[in-house]
Amino acid sequence: MIKRLNHISVAVDSIDDALKFYRDLLGLEVVETAKLEDRQLNVAFVKAGDTEIELLEPTSQDNTVTRFLERRGPGLHHICLEVDDLAAAMDELSARGAEFVDPEPRLGAVGQVAFILPEVGRGVLVELNQPDTKKA
Amino acid sequence: MIKRLNHISVAVDSIDDALKFYRDLLGLEVVETAKLEDRQLNVAFVKAGDTEIELLEPTSQDNTVTRFLERRGPGLHHICLEVDDLAAAMDELSARGAEFVDPEPRLGAVGQVAFILPEVGRGVLVELNQPDTKKA
Repeated sequence: MIKRLNHISVAVDSIDDALKFYRDLLGLEVVETAKLEDRQLNVAFVKAGDTEIELLEPTSQDNTVTRFLERRGPGLHHICLEVDDLAAAMDELSARGAEFVDPEPRLGAVGQVAFILPEVGRGVLVELNQPDTKKA
Repeated sequence: MIKRLNHISVAVDSIDDALKFYRDLLGLEVVETAKLEDRQLNVAFVKAGDTEIELLEPTSQDNTVTRFLERRGPGLHHICLEVDDLAAAMDELSARGAEFVDPEPRLGAVGQVAFILPEVGRGVLVELNQPDTKKA
């Protein structure tokens, strides 16, 4: 069911500053930047082999990433596993006991997404994604 | 210089319990388990596409993973980026301002490894690894 690790996400205070590490120091390529207005986040994706590292910079105070930064400081925030059919995967995982933050897929930075509750993931916030067909 | 994300690591209280999520619920394959006597850790690797998720379970109190679990609870611990030549990568990254936990590569679960200080990684602990030639 799970095809690959689509990306890992890192909460950062500033994407510009974080790129001094990922792009300038490590030499990783920036493949996409975006402003997610509805989630009040700026995001940047850097390539690491067959997967990507997503940098998450909140643009408002009313934001789960802002609260994460206040509580823990910058650092690893979640991982995202890619599936072919998100609705089917949610049904199958729910039957095995998974619980989701939202009951239905919603549009995210990497196509349709859904988050498994961190309690289910033993402290790890796990996103599932089904890439946009036009991008895939 | 960086070839791929070799693995991400998750600190867990119990590998047996964590496998109920990664193996039984998500359906990921366990590809390796090991006991790292010198680091007082049990580890398990599960496959996620071209990369792996490493589960880290401490076997003693005197352990950085034990302290991580006490401070933050179970969750994402570090990421590991693979290189061809670790000594050369350390030289190059040091010239760009990176600092390492240990000045020389040492033997880890995934060949020769070195950790970049989390201060350099903006709160993310980043391991570099050069796989064992016999395993590569």
